[in-house]
Amino acid sequence: MRDGEQTPGVSLEPEKKVWIARNLDALGVDVIEAGSAITSQGERDGIRAVVREGLKAEICSFARIVKSDIDYAIDCDVDSVHLVVPISDLHITQKLKKDREKVKRTAVDMVEYAKKHGLIVELSGEDASRADLDYVLDVYRAGVEAGADRLCFCDTVGVLNPERTYDIFRKLVTGVKAPVSIHCHDDFGLATANTVAALRAGASQAHVTMNGVGERAGNTSLEEVAIVLKSLYGVNTRIVLENLYPASRLVSRLMGIPVAPNKSLVGDNAFMHESGIHVHGLMANAATYEPITPETIGRKRQIMLGKHAGRSTVELALQGFGLSATGPQLDEITKRVKSLGDMGKHVTDVDLMSIADSVLGNHTVARIKLIDCTILSGNHATPTSSVKLTIDGQEVVESGVGVGPVDAALNALRRSISGVADVKLDDYRVEAITGGTDALVEVWVKMSRDGRVISARGAGPDIIMASVQAFIDGMNRLIEEKNGIVKKAAEP
Amino acid sequence: MRDGEQTPGVSLEPEKKVWIARNLDALGVDVIEAGSAITSQGERDGIRAVVREGLKAEICSFARIVKSDIDYAIDCDVDSVHLVVPISDLHITQKLKKDREKVKRTAVDMVEYAKKHGLIVELSGEDASRADLDYVLDVYRAGVEAGADRLCFCDTVGVLNPERTYDIFRKLVTGVKAPVSIHCHDDFGLATANTVAALRAGASQAHVTMNGVGERAGNTSLEEVAIVLKSLYGVNTRIVLENLYPASRLVSRLMGIPVAPNKSLVGDNAFMHESGIHVHGLMANAATYEPITPETIGRKRQIMLGKHAGRSTVELALQGFGLSATGPQLDEITKRVKSLGDMGKHVTDVDLMSIADSVLGNHTVARIKLIDCTILSGNHATPTSSVKLTIDGQEVVESGVGVGPVDAALNALRRSISGVADVKLDDYRVEAITGGTDALVEVWVKMSRDGRVISARGAGPDIIMASVQAFIDGMNRLIEEKNGIVKKAAEP
Repeated sequence: MRDGEQTPGVSLEPEKKVWIARNLDALGVDVIEAGSAITSQGERDGIRAVVREGLKAEICSFARIVKSDIDYAIDCDVDSVHLVVPISDLHITQKLKKDREKVKRTAVDMVEYAKKHGLIVELSGEDASRADLDYVLDVYRAGVEAGADRLCFCDTVGVLNPERTYDIFRKLVTGVKAPVSIHCHDDFGLATANTVAALRAGASQAHVTMNGVGERAGNTSLEEVAIVLKSLYGVNTRIVLENLYPASRLVSRLMGIPVAPNKSLVGDNAFMHESGIHVHGLMANAATYEPITPETIGRKRQIMLGKHAGRSTVELALQGFGLSATGPQLDEITKRVKSLGDMGKHVTDVDLMSIADSVLGNHTVARIKLIDCTILSGNHATPTSSVKLTIDGQEVVESGVGVGPVDAALNALRRSISGVADVKLDDYRVEAITGGTDALVEVWVKMSRDGRVISARGAGPDIIMASVQAFIDGMNRLIEEKNGIVKKAAEP
Repeated sequence: MRDGEQTPGVSLEPEKKVWIARNLDALGVDVIEAGSAITSQGERDGIRAVVREGLKAEICSFARIVKSDIDYAIDCDVDSVHLVVPISDLHITQKLKKDREKVKRTAVDMVEYAKKHGLIVELSGEDASRADLDYVLDVYRAGVEAGADRLCFCDTVGVLNPERTYDIFRKLVTGVKAPVSIHCHDDFGLATANTVAALRAGASQAHVTMNGVGERAGNTSLEEVAIVLKSLYGVNTRIVLENLYPASRLVSRLMGIPVAPNKSLVGDNAFMHESGIHVHGLMANAATYEPITPETIGRKRQIMLGKHAGRSTVELALQGFGLSATGPQLDEITKRVKSLGDMGKHVTDVDLMSIADSVLGNHTVARIKLIDCTILSGNHATPTSSVKLTIDGQEVVESGVGVGPVDAALNALRRSISGVADVKLDDYRVEAITGGTDALVEVWVKMSRDGRVISARGAGPDIIMASVQAFIDGMNRLIEEKNGIVKKAAEP
């Protein structure tokens, strides 16, 4: 948690630390580095709160080889310290302005000090991968003699490769009389491979973070190591695999660090399929295009429509809405889905249903039509919206307020149709807006009514009108009378 | 480009394909797989447009072992086809419902057909990592006899590990008489390590994508392979390294696929530093916490303030604004920056300057004060805003219109201060909004005036008022009279 939180711009208030710690504990993590006690008052409050939870995991604080760092850790009542010694000549001379002998002596003193206060000590060599390995061994041995319980080898700037890692760890595990941990950074994208190489060579413990968060390019991903060990090396860890995805979502949300769509295992796309060729294979046997089932890590398979969609993808999606089409109809629907995809568009449930209606000759008339929508907002005004619409030709006028203009408009809309249906807005997302205040905004909503779920999209330079458009399109589909049960909406 | 574009939801119109292809060519890429000609009319238009560019790179189309796929590729006038043969029993029996012998015969026929039409042929084994290696070799040899120029081994679902990859490629390169490519997927986070292992074992070519985009967890990252080869193995490729970051931004923008902040090399945080201990080291020698200089790949180092900020970080940031502080003042500013960070906040330029003002005793009075701001928008209304504010006590009332309500409000603000200063809005960003219409929105702006640049933030459930707040805070700092030249704003 400590290194994950060192992601620039991330800060976890005490309650968030506790929330994440509980989840890591349930996930089966052995040691939780809850923070660095010296950092600030808020940090110490957070560490203490985690300690008070009484979790199964060992609770650890980061500490430099400085007495005050250890004192603050003791003060937080943690089980252990991750005691970090700058160990490369670069760090010793440039950062600390000291020499090897002095650093080693301080490290030994601090190990003894921490042990005297009853702490478990993991003595860690910072920037060890760019250090003289003989000196690293020297410090490790002196540390173990002084009472260190575990050692750690840090690839602080991520410059190891798997072969070197393996060779180094063969030397370490035969050269010292204590368990050795591996701590990698992903600057070159090799953190997982290096961590696994160290474990193969005899490392006893791996430092990892959910989603690979951490400073710069982050640390080794917990989820990748757990799955690689299990799937590629047949090694079981204590990690409860099906908790991985929920834990990943929690950490991303609480830290405010988005996960890339193409992140292994936990990214939005990791089990999402679009192209026709792949979905065709998937329908025959999911293993054709999936290394593990999504359920292994607690998530679900998703199908998305776009320009790569083939007949099989479209057929599968139509089935989801209880619709079936003949061969030539399916060809035509597929052609139109692809041409919408050609324009660079995601194809939502509502898009697909409109295409299917037109091809299958289902004459659906939108029951709700927007006549007028006005929004007023300001620093001294309660965001207020009025809407005038017709439902089955009957005019309805309503108003609503909200915390902001979009909230006000959707509240007014929801009220105006409350006589007809109780529609819930399950999810509302706006892609990050970059570029300027006149950038195109894409709004995506997931709505439901009596167990039916549907996704819809709105786009435009005005975030309010784009939201209103998506909401009305979705509502119209949800209150259609002849529709089959909608089982599952495609995620964005 | 083809596999990158297979990212669910991504579709590149022809002009975007051309734009990306030009950049890949300038980056030094040898072969550009511009698309899959069979996919759609728009796809073929795109491929043809790339061919017409007359780039140095070989232009390739994906093709299944189906005559029409190759015909469409020929029709697009590409140099080569990436001819993909499902080669594992799983794919042959479950997806194609054929047998090994039949698949091999079809593959040979299609190689001959493509060669007869003058194409360079790269014969690719799909799902080769889960196939019988003897059968793979058998198909490869038959393909080479039929005229295939290159071969490719696809780890279609990302289940290789570096050791197995190395062993397989030793067998392949000694067993066949043609260059072999490696094509990896990142389902388990090992794509880069596996690609490099194959190259070490004798692979001649690697299939990669910018930012590691592609289906599911994506493909191997071009930038990681190029830098790993250069930095860790001392191998030069033809890739122009300093073009990597600009190319990464372009691909992310045109595909609409965000890059995670903690993505190696090209993520927002890859060269951003927050924590005090690290920045202290950096100030002494940047190499302490950076594996390569950011300039290597065409980008810059960034410092961010937050709860991990130490005195050195704060000092460096103050220097950027031409401010200096005594030791005790610096301690106090650092304490306040950390406590703002403790609340989970990024600390922007404006935040730091307010803290510094109060500690250094600079009595600055905001010259602009917002009295009133009203926004009106709707489906039949031109988004319109009126603002009333005082500048140096003088009341100013102005109005503005825009493409949306935020645009209208900021246009009104810009007009209202035009008599005092010409302030430019250089960047406007909103973090992705998730959860609901009442979620907290964080707006970040970068503004400039006569070469001074400043960042400011606004937050709240109302996107319009959050934007107005950020803009006014930034304006006030830009029109302060005693301020030194602001050299560089921190990025968000």
